[in-house]
Amino acid sequence: MKHTKGQFKKRGVDYDVPTYMPTLPREYYQSEDIYAEEAEKIFWRRWLMACREEEIPQAGDFVVVPVGDESIIVVRDKTGEINAHFNVCRHRGTRICVAESGCFDAGVITCPYHAWRYELDGRLKAAPMMTEVEDFDKADFGLHGAHIGLWGGFVFINLAEDPVAFEDELAPLIGKFEDWRLPELRIAHKLEYTLECNWKIILQNYQECYHCPGVHPLLAKWTPFRGAEHDCLGGTVIGGYMTLTEERGSMTMDGKAAAPPVCDVSGDDLQRVHYYSVFPNLLLSPHPDFVLYHRIRSEGVDRIRNDCHFLLHPDVMADAARMERFQSAIEFWDLTNRQDWKVCEQMQLGLKSHRFKTGRYGPMEDVPYALDQEVLRALGHERTT
Amino acid sequence: MKHTKGQFKKRGVDYDVPTYMPTLPREYYQSEDIYAEEAEKIFWRRWLMACREEEIPQAGDFVVVPVGDESIIVVRDKTGEINAHFNVCRHRGTRICVAESGCFDAGVITCPYHAWRYELDGRLKAAPMMTEVEDFDKADFGLHGAHIGLWGGFVFINLAEDPVAFEDELAPLIGKFEDWRLPELRIAHKLEYTLECNWKIILQNYQECYHCPGVHPLLAKWTPFRGAEHDCLGGTVIGGYMTLTEERGSMTMDGKAAAPPVCDVSGDDLQRVHYYSVFPNLLLSPHPDFVLYHRIRSEGVDRIRNDCHFLLHPDVMADAARMERFQSAIEFWDLTNRQDWKVCEQMQLGLKSHRFKTGRYGPMEDVPYALDQEVLRALGHERTT
Amino acid sequence: MKHTKGQFKKRGVDYDVPTYMPTLPREYYQSEDIYAEEAEKIFWRRWLMACREEEIPQAGDFVVVPVGDESIIVVRDKTGEINAHFNVCRHRGTRICVAESGCFDAGVITCPYHAWRYELDGRLKAAPMMTEVEDFDKADFGLHGAHIGLWGGFVFINLAEDPVAFEDELAPLIGKFEDWRLPELRIAHKLEYTLECNWKIILQNYQECYHCPGVHPLLAKWTPFRGAEHDCLGGTVIGGYMTLTEERGSMTMDGKAAAPPVCDVSGDDLQRVHYYSVFPNLLLSPHPDFVLYHRIRSEGVDRIRNDCHFLLHPDVMADAARMERFQSAIEFWDLTNRQDWKVCEQMQLGLKSHRFKTGRYGPMEDVPYALDQEVLRALGHERTT
Repeated sequence: MKHTKGQFKKRGVDYDVPTYMPTLPREYYQSEDIYAEEAEKIFWRRWLMACREEEIPQAGDFVVVPVGDESIIVVRDKTGEINAHFNVCRHRGTRICVAESGCFDAGVITCPYHAWRYELDGRLKAAPMMTEVEDFDKADFGLHGAHIGLWGGFVFINLAEDPVAFEDELAPLIGKFEDWRLPELRIAHKLEYTLECNWKIILQNYQECYHCPGVHPLLAKWTPFRGAEHDCLGGTVIGGYMTLTEERGSMTMDGKAAAPPVCDVSGDDLQRVHYYSVFPNLLLSPHPDFVLYHRIRSEGVDRIRNDCHFLLHPDVMADAARMERFQSAIEFWDLTNRQDWKVCEQMQLGLKSHRFKTGRYGPMEDVPYALDQEVLRALGHERTT
Repeated sequence: MKHTKGQFKKRGVDYDVPTYMPTLPREYYQSEDIYAEEAEKIFWRRWLMACREEEIPQAGDFVVVPVGDESIIVVRDKTGEINAHFNVCRHRGTRICVAESGCFDAGVITCPYHAWRYELDGRLKAAPMMTEVEDFDKADFGLHGAHIGLWGGFVFINLAEDPVAFEDELAPLIGKFEDWRLPELRIAHKLEYTLECNWKIILQNYQECYHCPGVHPLLAKWTPFRGAEHDCLGGTVIGGYMTLTEERGSMTMDGKAAAPPVCDVSGDDLQRVHYYSVFPNLLLSPHPDFVLYHRIRSEGVDRIRNDCHFLLHPDVMADAARMERFQSAIEFWDLTNRQDWKVCEQMQLGLKSHRFKTGRYGPMEDVPYALDQEVLRALGHERTT
Repeated sequence: MKHTKGQFKKRGVDYDVPTYMPTLPREYYQSEDIYAEEAEKIFWRRWLMACREEEIPQAGDFVVVPVGDESIIVVRDKTGEINAHFNVCRHRGTRICVAESGCFDAGVITCPYHAWRYELDGRLKAAPMMTEVEDFDKADFGLHGAHIGLWGGFVFINLAEDPVAFEDELAPLIGKFEDWRLPELRIAHKLEYTLECNWKIILQNYQECYHCPGVHPLLAKWTPFRGAEHDCLGGTVIGGYMTLTEERGSMTMDGKAAAPPVCDVSGDDLQRVHYYSVFPNLLLSPHPDFVLYHRIRSEGVDRIRNDCHFLLHPDVMADAARMERFQSAIEFWDLTNRQDWKVCEQMQLGLKSHRFKTGRYGPMEDVPYALDQEVLRALGHERTT
């Protein structure tokens, strides 16, 4: 099968995917300048998945989300609304919270340095002795705010002053995966990883199974690599699914389901593992029997923190025998993840070479190519090769 | 009380302190370029406190003082004079001393590489075989010299080729604190710290007590934070004092004196703790019963080494019972220092945020503002906000 | 003795060595920009010693050679030829080998990511599914090649696309040291070091004995420092010899031979220790009774990896008693090396000083000066001091 522009279009492609698909030039993985540009134009401008709503159930509960040099407090206020604030006191720039999560018990956010106090919604409540100061208006000194978007129990943030509407940006996701009743699910387990590679490499890796036969023999057995189908090929939400060969199968050490089907999942979805990137930092994989997601945090041009979470229905989590069985899914994905991280890190190393200018994607790598195009579009760059 | 330009002038202010006092832009704490400019225009041009005279009592005794990329040997010569030399052999640039301190026993400074030998005063004494070389004049190859200034038992150095006169630069200090007879005092204890923050943050922190109620409950009990008075507000020497509430009190765990009054200290000084910055690297605190000083060494844009010393009269140091009691002052300041370092480091983190442009000092923070002005003046920068 | 241009010429000097020999400006040891220029114009363009032929005896045997950001696979193919390939898959830029050495057992080089397979000579053998792709020609996707040069059992590589001919560049070496029958010798021992200094400092250190009396009292006893003679003074191969005072002496703890003379070594060579730099990364020292060489790998502007090897004839290595005696040479050189590394690292530290502009070589340092000239020539720089 030769891939042509026409064939891609049949699958609802937004991009004009040519037969010749070069990879990004090596500088996109090595250059501190391009990385700084990505921070500005991608991480500080696009919608980022911050946490699950369940992580901040009560008023005052917060998580702190690092975004490069920025740090964002995501906090539930007294009305039950979720807010996002830059974690910086307006007085002299002190970082207010150093804990990764917690609760503002007193219902106020207090800077530890000079005790300026802010409401949970960010307004400056009290600044000792500043009332004596001429021209000082508390209304001008609230915490800088970030934007919040909610979908499927996920909390997204956007650091831009005037971001693209959440509903427009994530449109392909809204209405999707209704059968999983995502908001009702809870975090059953979390695996934490640090990878020595650029953030784009993990997205590319997630979005093709060309590497599966060699890198993931077990995965390739449960979901043969030629069975990948894509239905979103462009924009923020990109992905598709792979087909399980085994009846009531799933991604576990023995290939059998790890848990009952999630909520209303039925029909074809019982035989599918979905893989969606929500550009730039969420990788979402609804399985028949659980939901897996990766939250990517870029910590430098060649460094990622990745927290891989497993979602289950609380009824399953309450059942000790079922949770014991569920370990097989955790074990499978931990094994598979580590196989991926190894090649991702080798790709980062290889791309140091000045002799390597650009590579060439093959027919099964149209989604990584689409991701690269999204990167270029976000940066406003043209390809020169 | 509203602070106005006029009020400040009553206290002998040199600077034109406006009602609106913005903090330095975040770049002054994060930018490698500005830091390099500070090295050149501040650390390599201003008078730096290097050590106490007592640390090099005999001919040949030396300490090595790091100043960013530079390393300075401070050494007492055979005439008893103190000299400062760049720690670099003129032959091929080898660092001569790697020890932090010691004694040149042979009365000469010998480079370990090719054995070029220098007099303690820096003159090249012998360079094997170089006498055979045409046009080689030993007089041209002495160690590069730095300048020395002495006050109160402190040894200051200046790396500039043609520095401002020591007596002019430190004029407000000369004649001050005579009652403590500083040259007679000796180092009783030293606390060593490393802080992950910019050097200016520790100076600012030292020069205001707006943070004391929240950060230092014990300190704020012995010296209430509203009791700060400044008498030097501008230039190299900036500071004032706080008033002890307790009769014969001091900064100790129980608020009572740690030792007898120092030498001739009497009257108001028995109830005062003085806090002076000697820009850019000495923080000097004469207490009624001891003298505390911090020697700051900037090791990078976001890293400081700080050695905190306690000075006492030798008679007190000879008395074991008194030294046991004196532990209470050491314990108090170690506790207080660590409280400060925590908020200093949080300020450094917060200032990474690109969203935070500049903050605003309050009425109790006029001295930090004056310090910032001194920084700008030294750099030759204008405020743009 | 005054050194003059004329005298130097008598010893076959290519360079015009003046009486006044300044050292390189400090920037050549500190600047990341100059270091990047050195990578491009020296490490990626000159002939580098990679390994000994004995390290890859069989088809498929390989070593991986890091050269700054580049990584080169040196591998013996099925015809017995030695090949050098950039360690980068042409598909997406993955580093293929992470092991330092090993054997491609299957006789093919397989990328671990998407299983593209290359012949040992670098040609692309198979790329799964790429045959389906229009305009994809396997001939265009072989591994990028580096050049190979062989001399004396040493394997050299050159990363340039069109390098200077190996035989021209190393001409002064070819025909030299025939009596040692270098190709027949084998690695008897290896000492590994990491040094915190610029790569040029270790070459300079190796090429003068002005430092020997102070730094190496034992070495200076066996080979008095005034007994150095140079016969190649300029270009890629620079060096000479020192004279052993003791009959049947060598560089060992007791100054006596560590082994029988190597192969056909006789006459004057029984009393000489040769020291040659093969610019920029091989230091070669034929002794009467063994051969010592250092392979230098620059890992950054102020960091070197140095592997110091001892070569012996296999007959000596098969004799346990002789190998026990040989420990004395290993012990001697490990001691001597560490003495050198210490002063090399102190020179790197001293050269941080901005006050030190340039130094001045003495009459025994004409070879380091010639090395510096070779650096400047390679960079295309003119001296400004």
